Amino acid sequence: MQRIGVIGGGAWGTALAMVLRRAGRDVALWAHEADVVEAINRTHRNPRFLPGVELDATIVATDSLSWTLDAELLLLAVPAQYLRAVCKRLAPLWPKGIPAVICAKGIESGSGALMTEVAAAELPGTPLSILSGPTFAIEVARGLPTAIALASADGGLANRIAAAIGSTRFRPYASDDPVGVAIGGAVKNVLAIACGVVEGRKLGDNARAALITRGLAELSRLAVAKGGRAETCMGLSGLGDLVLTASSAQSRNYSLGFALGEGKTVAEVLAGRQGVTEGVATAPAVLELAARAGVDMPVSASVAGLLRGDVTVDQTIEALLARPFKNEQGARG
Amino acid sequence: MQRIGVIGGGAWGTALAMVLRRAGRDVALWAHEADVVEAINRTHRNPRFLPGVELDATIVATDSLSWTLDAELLLLAVPAQYLRAVCKRLAPLWPKGIPAVICAKGIESGSGALMTEVAAAELPGTPLSILSGPTFAIEVARGLPTAIALASADGGLANRIAAAIGSTRFRPYASDDPVGVAIGGAVKNVLAIACGVVEGRKLGDNARAALITRGLAELSRLAVAKGGRAETCMGLSGLGDLVLTASSAQSRNYSLGFALGEGKTVAEVLAGRQGVTEGVATAPAVLELAARAGVDMPVSASVAGLLRGDVTVDQTIEALLARPFKNEQGARG
Repeated sequence: MQRIGVIGGGAWGTALAMVLRRAGRDVALWAHEADVVEAINRTHRNPRFLPGVELDATIVATDSLSWTLDAELLLLAVPAQYLRAVCKRLAPLWPKGIPAVICAKGIESGSGALMTEVAAAELPGTPLSILSGPTFAIEVARGLPTAIALASADGGLANRIAAAIGSTRFRPYASDDPVGVAIGGAVKNVLAIACGVVEGRKLGDNARAALITRGLAELSRLAVAKGGRAETCMGLSGLGDLVLTASSAQSRNYSLGFALGEGKTVAEVLAGRQGVTEGVATAPAVLELAARAGVDMPVSASVAGLLRGDVTVDQTIEALLARPFKNEQGARG
Repeated sequence: MQRIGVIGGGAWGTALAMVLRRAGRDVALWAHEADVVEAINRTHRNPRFLPGVELDATIVATDSLSWTLDAELLLLAVPAQYLRAVCKRLAPLWPKGIPAVICAKGIESGSGALMTEVAAAELPGTPLSILSGPTFAIEVARGLPTAIALASADGGLANRIAAAIGSTRFRPYASDDPVGVAIGGAVKNVLAIACGVVEGRKLGDNARAALITRGLAELSRLAVAKGGRAETCMGLSGLGDLVLTASSAQSRNYSLGFALGEGKTVAEVLAGRQGVTEGVATAPAVLELAARAGVDMPVSASVAGLLRGDVTVDQTIEALLARPFKNEQGARG
């Protein structure tokens, strides 16, 4: 796995290209936006999606899919709601048997499909794995220490990919539970919005910690209902990522919630943004999935209601925090 | 349970007195320091331990233990390392059969005993429960929303106490796993120091999230080895409290770690403090307990080594973050 292609020149795809260079791999980075391709090749920067970071000068950006796909491993770093369309486009060009690493976090709107399910449907026969964990792209790009889960139903494949892309500063931990890892990375974006709302309303750190605890319990219930493991959700992609996302203004999801808690509207906040706030599309998709799986997810339901405009911030907070006293396991169960 | 006594006029005991007043109970607050007693009674403030908060004027502070112990429920809100001495002093005066709620978080230095074990040894025959969760005292005192675990081997007792002390803004969740709750509240202080070190050294949020994930795994292992449940540690006293403590400068343990990460010494930091930084005494006690239980706790061991001065900050960080790639469950196991 010496030559590795990255599909997607957003913040995460660009940071992953840096990861691959640090691991000593050859990298081709495909970007959708012509200005991103040009900026990376000419200035070794990606000012649109990852401002302030100087990139390795040997990272080559391209608009050629066929050139990027001439690789021994491919990373799919596109927004969750575009993954299906991108896979459809890649499928006829895909080098047979070359493994794909899904680097998107979300649940598909409309279908309620996990990212692993989307890729499996559109790239049949391709060995799949999914990469997810507590990873602000800017910190990864700068080489700060990061640990991440890398899951595949084929545990041996996950181990080989971990060895190919890892370095002392970027440590993939192999897992054989792609369902748990996919759900951890998706649902945490929705929960982070809830945490932001509570913080934006100045309800304090105690309330946010209680909400994180309760949110992680509903995330785990969904993972188990879909065939994943609860213990995976207590690992890097679930607990770890939720802790990261739900306590930092660096998170687009948390900061959206924070602005809503302060009284801004969803439209106002999203109007000023580059990049995707993944939780906005994923919140209703989580609910579709939860309804089909028969899982109660009150925190996610509150967030979806708030984003739709069905309920006010104060009603949302009431639903998030007001609960009868009951057994702690019962409250989580 | 109308009349409730609180033993300890620190930040937490004072905040709990406010909780009890909001629940409509009569409160007597015993404080060790004469200036605290006088300030609470004369100015309805506790400037030494809880500055900036106006207290309910009907909270009565006293230096009389026998007067405070004339109650239907007693809360023990003293620092962990003083719990045994306080219980020894209370034992001859204790009203027979009146339940005690342990509000201390820590493990006893020297003996490696849990707070529940200390109280059981010194107050034999007293019905015991333990209160622990993500609760900055200042937020609780101000009436911000808080959820907390309240555990007793007698689940019915926990439910009755929860009903007596709870209100819409302070929600105790009953549990029948006092061991899990005690260990969650104790070990998180040690892990918070580690998180502070990483942050003080500017290693970023990704690294801290990975460390929290790994730390919670070792906390759970210890709880299970001592007869508690892993799922308790994924609740309010464990996950919830760790999330709170490990990401806020409000935490004395986190801010100690942060200062160490910036290059200060333990002595320098502690010299300027009122109140107890519980993790300092608990770190070596956790290790004693872990050794006896046969549990590997690398994060806690690193913190204990740093506090002893056996290793430098950089050696500690190396031990905290440098690990071979391996299976995620294995890394947690």
